[in-house]
Amino acid sequence: MIQHVCDALAKVRESKPLVVNVTNYVVMNNTANALLAVGASPIMAHSREEMAEMMGFAGALVINIGTLDSQWLPRMIYAVEQANANGKPVVLDPVGCGASQLRTDASRQLAKLADNLIIRGNASEIIALAGESAQSKGVDALDSSDAAVNAAKALAESHNCTVVISGATDYVVNPDGVVALDNGHEMMPFVTGMGCSHTALTGAFAAVGSNEISAGIASTAILGVAGEIAAAKSAGPGSLQMNLLDAIYQLDEDTLKTRLKISVR
Amino acid sequence: MIQHVCDALAKVRESKPLVVNVTNYVVMNNTANALLAVGASPIMAHSREEMAEMMGFAGALVINIGTLDSQWLPRMIYAVEQANANGKPVVLDPVGCGASQLRTDASRQLAKLADNLIIRGNASEIIALAGESAQSKGVDALDSSDAAVNAAKALAESHNCTVVISGATDYVVNPDGVVALDNGHEMMPFVTGMGCSHTALTGAFAAVGSNEISAGIASTAILGVAGEIAAAKSAGPGSLQMNLLDAIYQLDEDTLKTRLKISVR
Amino acid sequence: MIQHVCDALAKVRESKPLVVNVTNYVVMNNTANALLAVGASPIMAHSREEMAEMMGFAGALVINIGTLDSQWLPRMIYAVEQANANGKPVVLDPVGCGASQLRTDASRQLAKLADNLIIRGNASEIIALAGESAQSKGVDALDSSDAAVNAAKALAESHNCTVVISGATDYVVNPDGVVALDNGHEMMPFVTGMGCSHTALTGAFAAVGSNEISAGIASTAILGVAGEIAAAKSAGPGSLQMNLLDAIYQLDEDTLKTRLKISVR
Repeated sequence: MIQHVCDALAKVRESKPLVVNVTNYVVMNNTANALLAVGASPIMAHSREEMAEMMGFAGALVINIGTLDSQWLPRMIYAVEQANANGKPVVLDPVGCGASQLRTDASRQLAKLADNLIIRGNASEIIALAGESAQSKGVDALDSSDAAVNAAKALAESHNCTVVISGATDYVVNPDGVVALDNGHEMMPFVTGMGCSHTALTGAFAAVGSNEISAGIASTAILGVAGEIAAAKSAGPGSLQMNLLDAIYQLDEDTLKTRLKISVR
Repeated sequence: MIQHVCDALAKVRESKPLVVNVTNYVVMNNTANALLAVGASPIMAHSREEMAEMMGFAGALVINIGTLDSQWLPRMIYAVEQANANGKPVVLDPVGCGASQLRTDASRQLAKLADNLIIRGNASEIIALAGESAQSKGVDALDSSDAAVNAAKALAESHNCTVVISGATDYVVNPDGVVALDNGHEMMPFVTGMGCSHTALTGAFAAVGSNEISAGIASTAILGVAGEIAAAKSAGPGSLQMNLLDAIYQLDEDTLKTRLKISVR
Repeated sequence: MIQHVCDALAKVRESKPLVVNVTNYVVMNNTANALLAVGASPIMAHSREEMAEMMGFAGALVINIGTLDSQWLPRMIYAVEQANANGKPVVLDPVGCGASQLRTDASRQLAKLADNLIIRGNASEIIALAGESAQSKGVDALDSSDAAVNAAKALAESHNCTVVISGATDYVVNPDGVVALDNGHEMMPFVTGMGCSHTALTGAFAAVGSNEISAGIASTAILGVAGEIAAAKSAGPGSLQMNLLDAIYQLDEDTLKTRLKISVR
């Protein structure tokens, strides 16, 4: 699996895939910079007057509901429809799913709509997104990680998709199994939009034709390894944000192979 | 007062209060990061479809009119109404009040509406917000600081609120008196959104149940001390922005006690 | 020409011109910070309820279509009309012109509307903006730089404006000639919004009464020199973004005179 991650990174840097982002106001700058740092070409666009054209030549669509409202939701629905029409993968970030009915409903609607779907969220978002379908498996849950992985399995089966769960340990789940990654650093949640960058990076790997689980593993591996390299140099979250972009930009195959902690569960 | 600031910081870090921000496009990332660095939990949200829910579990509401338009103003009014309905404090940043009729009118409307109000602005915004009610006291004004403090006193009395004035010397004014704080650095105004971060941090302290004047003092103290620590390490405003987040994150009680310059006027 | 650049920088720092920006969500923070670092005073505003007032006291208008939609376009048109009514220069950034019909049409409409116009884009945007009028000159094009300069010449003549082309070599083109600048660094395109900052800085120089070609030369010179100073200290695009703001803030006349590579073509 480690070699697959290295190959995927090389492919992104070589082919500079276009990733269309319909995302939130808070993180647009960060996620565009994360995509540039990894070698991809970000487009932040949302107008229905250009989305069909854009999804024609883009490699993937990233949808992030972080600052959702009644104007943005129809744009996101239309963008997913255009991704479907062009056979392009959709990476969905259900920011705050469970924190309001608006976000829970919108996340479910968008997840149901996308043909080729990767979902990236934290444990509580994934659990809320899965809702009752996950609770039926919840009897086995020992802690929130177990509950989230069970919710992700339910989503992966019902939507035939890949689910990436961010946390102290990250999980990438699809209908065939679970992969766990143990990189990253505890300071990362003190930078806003770190999860959103995770989602955007997943779009870069999906855009170069990695299958859904490989894209999720590659972005998780690269953000985790770059994040722990950056955190070691950082006095706080301000410098972490800066050093993270440098670390993604500089990341090489040897560093990935030395540091990546990945296992099949 | 210094011990109160230290206790308030400890309380924010321990209880991680949720602060809902209806703010401007320019600073959303900065103010979310400032809230994370101090230990709070930011939510940047504006939709009327979720604001009632959010104000039910949030600790405070921050309203910032920096990129106001006819779509955002009704959202802000609705958010203040929900804060009132839930008994939550509102921190208002009247960005550009006085620079256009739209901003002056909106600032006054929002200030009048909020039940538990803290206003944070620079001298010219506070003077413009107070308008004629301040000018009646203006005969005593010796310089712009005096004029701003007089305007703040008028606002504090008419709205039964606390007013925080940012400047070379910062002032926190309520109906009972004036506190002056003398930290900070002259490079800080070269970073966009520094005042907006000041406002957001005030929301974090209001959210943990500090009374209005204590919340204003705590945020002013912490931004001022962290700002001067950060500026000492910074070659310019780019590094200042980064170092400021690190300094807020690292700030401890001893540093606050050693550096804080605060006095009752 | 080098002394003109130094004088223009001194004038911006002395007079702190107000620059109104109707720009995109991704770069609002960066471009505000670039304007502050160079000594100007940015206002990010877009509401038609305040634009007439703002263009009354602002020195220049910056229009950037990076996250265009059907709500933003009328705001941009109205802002240009108010700039015209007040005799203020307009700097247009046709982000993504050529990538969608929406962007191409909007760029052409805005360029046609502005009375005192500077256009700042990359080669492909300038070529797309010029469209057929440039292709008639395209027979002489030897590479994309030549094609872009030819397109810029066509635009400069048809719109009686100045055109700034960003690239490995930057060009400033007006009806009277072409100036080439050879500063900058290959890492700069890995930071999102670098071109948008170029556009915003052009607004600062236009706002202090530099004629259009002088404003374009000054901003290009300063971003290029500051960018190469910053890149020399930067391990990647994260630190480059930070160091760039520091370098703009610190830039002095001696450094400009030593480093600036400028020639008339």
